[in-house]
Amino acid sequence: MTFTRRLQQAIEEKNNPTVMGLDPKPEYVPSFLIEEGMTDGEKIFAFNRHLIDAAKDLIPAVKPQLAYYEALGLDGIKAFHETIRYAKEKGLIVIVDGKRNDIGSTADQYATAYLTDTGFAAYADALTVNPYLGSDGIKPFLEAAAANGKGLFVLVRTSNPSAIDLLDLELKDGRAFYEAVADLVKAWGEPFVGDDGYSPLGAVIGATWPEQADALRMRLPQTFVLVPGYGAQGGSAEDAARLFDKEGKGAIVNASRSLMLAWQKANADSPDAFAEATHMAIVKMRDDLNQALTMAGKKRV
Amino acid sequence: MTFTRRLQQAIEEKNNPTVMGLDPKPEYVPSFLIEEGMTDGEKIFAFNRHLIDAAKDLIPAVKPQLAYYEALGLDGIKAFHETIRYAKEKGLIVIVDGKRNDIGSTADQYATAYLTDTGFAAYADALTVNPYLGSDGIKPFLEAAAANGKGLFVLVRTSNPSAIDLLDLELKDGRAFYEAVADLVKAWGEPFVGDDGYSPLGAVIGATWPEQADALRMRLPQTFVLVPGYGAQGGSAEDAARLFDKEGKGAIVNASRSLMLAWQKANADSPDAFAEATHMAIVKMRDDLNQALTMAGKKRV
Repeated sequence: MTFTRRLQQAIEEKNNPTVMGLDPKPEYVPSFLIEEGMTDGEKIFAFNRHLIDAAKDLIPAVKPQLAYYEALGLDGIKAFHETIRYAKEKGLIVIVDGKRNDIGSTADQYATAYLTDTGFAAYADALTVNPYLGSDGIKPFLEAAAANGKGLFVLVRTSNPSAIDLLDLELKDGRAFYEAVADLVKAWGEPFVGDDGYSPLGAVIGATWPEQADALRMRLPQTFVLVPGYGAQGGSAEDAARLFDKEGKGAIVNASRSLMLAWQKANADSPDAFAEATHMAIVKMRDDLNQALTMAGKKRV
Repeated sequence: MTFTRRLQQAIEEKNNPTVMGLDPKPEYVPSFLIEEGMTDGEKIFAFNRHLIDAAKDLIPAVKPQLAYYEALGLDGIKAFHETIRYAKEKGLIVIVDGKRNDIGSTADQYATAYLTDTGFAAYADALTVNPYLGSDGIKPFLEAAAANGKGLFVLVRTSNPSAIDLLDLELKDGRAFYEAVADLVKAWGEPFVGDDGYSPLGAVIGATWPEQADALRMRLPQTFVLVPGYGAQGGSAEDAARLFDKEGKGAIVNASRSLMLAWQKANADSPDAFAEATHMAIVKMRDDLNQALTMAGKKRV
């Protein structure tokens, strides 16, 4: 089955278009999980495991952000591998957030690392990539994704304030730069569109740009959208809802800190309280998103 | 001492503005290095060690490309760490080629991974980064680099053919997109310019674009340039020489396959022959670059 079909199916089974970001820091880990002599990597894996256990019946996917694991060296990379294996065992879709990019021969190596079925790549379902290098930096990723039933999300409009520095530059032909990127993403993905209407080449579009969202969604009819920027970064459920298609499909919204740190807000430093606090934060986000989709006339009934 | 001062000094000591790319694949490793029961990571580390031994008196720096290590999983990352530690012990400057990029809070984690003095980051001197996310995706890298005497190289014009897909888009104000990126790199680096005249924020500009090189060099007077695309990718010594400043400073040229695989071309599958073949390839490149700089009137006398 194609990646987008698997992803959409998982979203519908859980009735929740939420992906939980796993961007752990050692200081995020509640004390009930910390044992004498644990390394930082062991701490964050224990944290991720409890987050996954609390979330697995409610969400379709997780998105570990590689930077947080790389920051802890080998110990962190080991925690990353254990995390994606564990998430996969629990039936979750794994979107690796690495924003990788390079020339063709090197992009090929990154594709081997995250989009094949060998080694730890087998536990990853999709990878985020940066389009700066143009088509020959995307092609190896896209071919590997298509061949192995996996997916990609290309940065089109990131959620951060300074995204405008480059993305909003106005082109001579009247388009904004990010619109030119979107047009390339559409063209690159076109030959790979599956019978569900989506290509394996998705897009990252932040929930923090509601004014651009409707036009971008129309510009990318065959593109699954990964939506960061919800919650801590300021994007609302209404903002995120704009990036779904008319049937309320084709997008998944990320939340990291608001779910990972729900236990802190609730002062829930025990196994049951941790699970309960995480659970409640996910249910709230799910209901907010579904309500916003209904209000926008996009909800599947 | 600032990164650019250390780098320029090392280039002058070796009289060689060459950085050796370490982009190893298990199949690149000569049979004399392979022992029963070695993992792929152990093989590529043995290969890198021999390359470093052969090169250390002739070159100022090495540039391991993370993708090749990530492709081998944990075993590969271990080889990466051992490689940068070994290179550092041998007195070489280490430029980590990862083209990392993300929003501020995440860029901060990548900066921890490669631009601090803790853990394995202590063995890295500089990191390549992608500017797509604008200033707040660059700032954490730049601040960490400046604080720790390290450096950055921002992708301005990559060496691959499809770099033109986005970079040559024409802006309404008459600049090409890559010129707008160059202008931002200059502005971002300006507050950090040291007394050697360079900021820690360098640029990646491929040797494969001789027609753009002179203008880009003038546009970025305070920017150290990392030059890929020489050799296997088609850039000549004359092309690369354009990216040095008038005194023949401020640039370093990468070669990966032409140095790493010199042993194959010479059929040099023994320790002495391997060292000799690598040595000769480096000397040839050094002499070609220095001759091209002299011809361009840029060589220090």
